Amino acid sequence: MRVAYQGESGAFSENAARRLLGTEIIGVPCRTFEEMFGSVGAGKADCCIAPIENSLAGSIHRNYDLLFDSDLTIAGETSMRIVHNLIAPPDVAIADIRRVYSHPVALAQCTRFFTQHPEIEAMPVHDTAGAVRLVMERARKDEAGIASANAAEIYGGRVLIESIEDNAQNFTRFFLLIPPQHASEVSLRETTRRWKTSIVFRVSNKPGALFRALGAFAIFEIDLSKIESRPIEGRPWEYAFYLDFIGKSDEPNVARALDSLRELAEMVRVLGSYPTRW
Amino acid sequence: MRVAYQGESGAFSENAARRLLGTEIIGVPCRTFEEMFGSVGAGKADCCIAPIENSLAGSIHRNYDLLFDSDLTIAGETSMRIVHNLIAPPDVAIADIRRVYSHPVALAQCTRFFTQHPEIEAMPVHDTAGAVRLVMERARKDEAGIASANAAEIYGGRVLIESIEDNAQNFTRFFLLIPPQHASEVSLRETTRRWKTSIVFRVSNKPGALFRALGAFAIFEIDLSKIESRPIEGRPWEYAFYLDFIGKSDEPNVARALDSLRELAEMVRVLGSYPTRW
Repeated sequence: MRVAYQGESGAFSENAARRLLGTEIIGVPCRTFEEMFGSVGAGKADCCIAPIENSLAGSIHRNYDLLFDSDLTIAGETSMRIVHNLIAPPDVAIADIRRVYSHPVALAQCTRFFTQHPEIEAMPVHDTAGAVRLVMERARKDEAGIASANAAEIYGGRVLIESIEDNAQNFTRFFLLIPPQHASEVSLRETTRRWKTSIVFRVSNKPGALFRALGAFAIFEIDLSKIESRPIEGRPWEYAFYLDFIGKSDEPNVARALDSLRELAEMVRVLGSYPTRW
Repeated sequence: MRVAYQGESGAFSENAARRLLGTEIIGVPCRTFEEMFGSVGAGKADCCIAPIENSLAGSIHRNYDLLFDSDLTIAGETSMRIVHNLIAPPDVAIADIRRVYSHPVALAQCTRFFTQHPEIEAMPVHDTAGAVRLVMERARKDEAGIASANAAEIYGGRVLIESIEDNAQNFTRFFLLIPPQHASEVSLRETTRRWKTSIVFRVSNKPGALFRALGAFAIFEIDLSKIESRPIEGRPWEYAFYLDFIGKSDEPNVARALDSLRELAEMVRVLGSYPTRW
């Protein structure tokens, strides 16, 4: 299975793909999320793995928007603890480091380290694993990167400090996305028994409209796990709502809730019903 | 009145501050949103003007988080049509331009222009007005910036193309933020009669909890204009909800709805009740 992901080999997304699909996948590294979605559409990859939310930074809206514009369906979900490590060539000492490269979000999640080391400059690059590849290629005595332990292994770097992130409660949720006609061919590694469903809907701009829409779920005792609002292009200050809830779309109570929502809403689209591996 | 804003003189935020407070304000330009909030805390400014949401890009979460961590209250709201102009020194011809500087969000909102001109490279900088100042200082024949017409005037640039944004339905909402003890001293220019209130609340992670919380507003026929979820640090996959609704916090139905919400929620905080100028 060819799995597209954003970043270079050793990226957190690649680890997430292995967690869901096993280690024998063929990774298709992509520079941007746009390229990642495009590579599935163009047949260069069979599916892709998209980070959708981080427990500290919040939703990754670009991927919500790209998922909405795509024909892909969600075929699985996982969550990964994000551990940021300081990684450098084997002969580099911490005291000599002056520049540390990583993705801007990773740098922002390690502010305590940079406050403790005012002599070190944070250097943003497009990818965590790519930062380690870069410092290994440059092989300077005063540069390091921040990335997963897996990236250190791939590029031959040494982990100087493990887990330098400010907050250990740092998790990222990933969706496995695939063209719907191939969804049944996906064979996930052992998952929990919990199924979730993700939908997007739009209600008319009337008082109580969102309350009534959520009522469709409350009546059938469906447990919502997330709601997210996104602007609608060309309709300022109106919103589409992304909802995640526990249950599979063909379970009777879920099907009834969706039927009720369709009566109330201007638009409802099921983005996928999928097993979760946490 | 000293008003802090992110960006340089001529920034969209400065225009928004003038729209709310009049042209005689003293602008306090800040490099980052953090610096902007900090300058009010440190007494270097009396208030600040924070962009909170764009009708195409969505919420500006950094400012939600900074507002939550601050003691400031919302004292007014306005919305500005964002018009992006291509601005260059007076003797520059469009055909000669090879690099165009602006804020990354502004560049992303002008993709059609960059697709039509593949010979031009988009150069991200921290501010739209700052981009125009930069190209005017460099005074090259092959560089331009993207910013407001006001920035062109301030730095002596010429508007080569007006309104090059992809989508004309491009508006940004701004909050005027001030220490609560000074809120009554604010004298806004003519506003609409509409008052709004913004709150943040947290409910227990139980099925139907958000539905019941919104019920407090539905019962009292209060019109919600926005809901936004943000992660809670240290509690992965739990959320705080930011709610904007029509009404003033001392109106009887609003007060009753807030009382009901306080019965249901783990935490409720009123971020401000404020007149709007649209």
